[in-house]
Amino acid sequence: MGVKKHILVIPGDGIGPEVTTWGKAVLEKIGADFGHEFIFNEALMGHAGIEATGNPLPDETLEKAKASDAILFGAIGHIKYDNDPSAKVRPEQGLLKIRKELGLYANLRPIMLFDELLDASSLKPEILKGTDILFFRELTGDVYFGEKKRSEDRNTASDLMIYHRYEVERIATKAFEAARVRGKRLCSVDKANVLEASRLWREVVQELAKQYPDVETEHMFIDNAAMQLVKNPKKFDVVLTANLFGDILTDEASQIAGSMGMLASASIGDGTGFFEPIHGSAHDIAGQDKANPLASILSVALMLEISFGLKDEAKKITAAIDKTLKDGYRTGDIADANTDKTKILGTKAMGQKVLD
Amino acid sequence: MGVKKHILVIPGDGIGPEVTTWGKAVLEKIGADFGHEFIFNEALMGHAGIEATGNPLPDETLEKAKASDAILFGAIGHIKYDNDPSAKVRPEQGLLKIRKELGLYANLRPIMLFDELLDASSLKPEILKGTDILFFRELTGDVYFGEKKRSEDRNTASDLMIYHRYEVERIATKAFEAARVRGKRLCSVDKANVLEASRLWREVVQELAKQYPDVETEHMFIDNAAMQLVKNPKKFDVVLTANLFGDILTDEASQIAGSMGMLASASIGDGTGFFEPIHGSAHDIAGQDKANPLASILSVALMLEISFGLKDEAKKITAAIDKTLKDGYRTGDIADANTDKTKILGTKAMGQKVLD
Ligand SMILES: CC(C)[C@H](C(=O)O)[C@@H](O)C(=O)O
Ligand SMILES: CC(C)[C@H](C(=O)O)[C@@H](O)C(=O)O
Repeated sequence: MGVKKHILVIPGDGIGPEVTTWGKAVLEKIGADFGHEFIFNEALMGHAGIEATGNPLPDETLEKAKASDAILFGAIGHIKYDNDPSAKVRPEQGLLKIRKELGLYANLRPIMLFDELLDASSLKPEILKGTDILFFRELTGDVYFGEKKRSEDRNTASDLMIYHRYEVERIATKAFEAARVRGKRLCSVDKANVLEASRLWREVVQELAKQYPDVETEHMFIDNAAMQLVKNPKKFDVVLTANLFGDILTDEASQIAGSMGMLASASIGDGTGFFEPIHGSAHDIAGQDKANPLASILSVALMLEISFGLKDEAKKITAAIDKTLKDGYRTGDIADANTDKTKILGTKAMGQKVLD
Repeated sequence: MGVKKHILVIPGDGIGPEVTTWGKAVLEKIGADFGHEFIFNEALMGHAGIEATGNPLPDETLEKAKASDAILFGAIGHIKYDNDPSAKVRPEQGLLKIRKELGLYANLRPIMLFDELLDASSLKPEILKGTDILFFRELTGDVYFGEKKRSEDRNTASDLMIYHRYEVERIATKAFEAARVRGKRLCSVDKANVLEASRLWREVVQELAKQYPDVETEHMFIDNAAMQLVKNPKKFDVVLTANLFGDILTDEASQIAGSMGMLASASIGDGTGFFEPIHGSAHDIAGQDKANPLASILSVALMLEISFGLKDEAKKITAAIDKTLKDGYRTGDIADANTDKTKILGTKAMGQKVLD
């Protein structure tokens, strides 16, 4: 039986609009094929929100977000603000605020490895082969949301790295539950040899681990984890970490999947689920039909599976991507020396291939 | 003409004593060969300091450190404390305190690539070849030294990430000066799209960049930098970053050099220079004659060059290491499938080979 769902599309900045177009197109196709009714709405955020309303997260966007069943997001950020450290209003504030307002405390980032892309990575294929990691990045706490200060003479700046027990508990619980139905290994990453917030983190995870005797729990310092991820990615199953460390590790891990253009993420928590590629706004290639739409399409697969429980539909999408890659088609970011030059596609052609 | 220098050896914890033994032996040999007088003293720090005096940085160690011309350090940390987040006294406090007390605000971590080790890395040789990076990690500020708090009910923990303008200025100046005499490219890594401390960081670097028009300055977010370092390490020349980000990036970068066992670091600033391997105490292999002594020996090369201005002596050491590697000798961490099994050496045999 078909479901009826309201989906909010927030294209955002840079390559965001180009890639979400294809995520949406795939949703429409799935709806038609499987008899689901997906009702779309659109809203502004980030630089696009600032341009239109002066606000990186317009009130209207937040209302629409709360009223929808799931959100498909593109990307955020603008070079203008990156180079102006004194700007008061910034695109990224929109993303941080919506994460907080929707209570999206758990950011899931699966590192999927399409066999066809083994050679697209800078890592050796034998190091990569068999890697399958699921990151749980805490998303509404840490130094991201702690108090920010700038002294009056502007010579001193600070951000408070802060965690509360309940914040660690709820994300850690989700990670343990996931580990239980996956490889039964959980690696919690922190910097407990230096940071008090990490020591609280480690305490909570140690306590919780007692309730999951079937899961093998390990604690690793962030510096070591950043190293091990390159040295031997296969050793990881579920990785649990704080907001800042998760930001860094998952971007690093994108090289495992060949390219950032291949990675999707799901943010879940108290309310509406939020699905987005890991890649950023990439202004250098925006509007040039060069962006890889696969991360947005994979975000849609995550949405179907996690928010709507539609596993077959999600599988259909990953299978379509797999087939497209097997047929030799690539966007520029995942092409390598062996790629047939005639099969290097732009955003639109790649989106269309998957659709077909 | 020979110089006369007082060198303090602080072996520290875990594999520290095993590897510094060889650093010291190489110094003695250089002294004899080049007619320098190196006068050695020894002191305790870390877990070794706690065991002997209850203090991870005994007063006597600090006094000896201040009175010496350079310090050769081993490693710090103990598994006992890693798993006990509530311990009040911790080995790492010794290292953090000596960095602060000696004003060692600039930590230089060169990523040297011995050609012989191209295959020891998990990265593809063609990605690695030609990589030559010099990291400048700020070492006495950031969330490492900001106020740490734990609420009375122990449910909330925080660390203050804080920077002052002068702290950024002095390390950035050192990095720009180095870039000027190297590849003339500087990449400053921060998270200015989220953190106020990073926005101050970026402001200061932008201002300073105007005084170095001959250096091409770039700003990169830490998540992107963690990714680019794996994707295309060759693009970096001098990398300038804060304490925490530097900790993470340099450990990650160790995979470029094949192994953490190959990387040395120099901490400099207001007083006595401090030289140490990047690797940690590695308790799992301590006392087993398995540790790679090359990072400690390379630390000595950095000491000779940076603290004493003895370039020829430093070169002699890297040449000796190069020859040892060319002759096919490896410790376990840098051996690969093609290594002649009879040439895989323990700590002592490897140290002796370089000495010879
Ligand atoms: C754009 C930025 C604020 C964001 C973050 O740091 O969380 C991004 O890097 C991400 O990982 O989603
Ligand atoms: C041992 C630890 C406190 C230290 C640090 O984080 O600075 C180490 O990882 C390093 O990089 O020197």
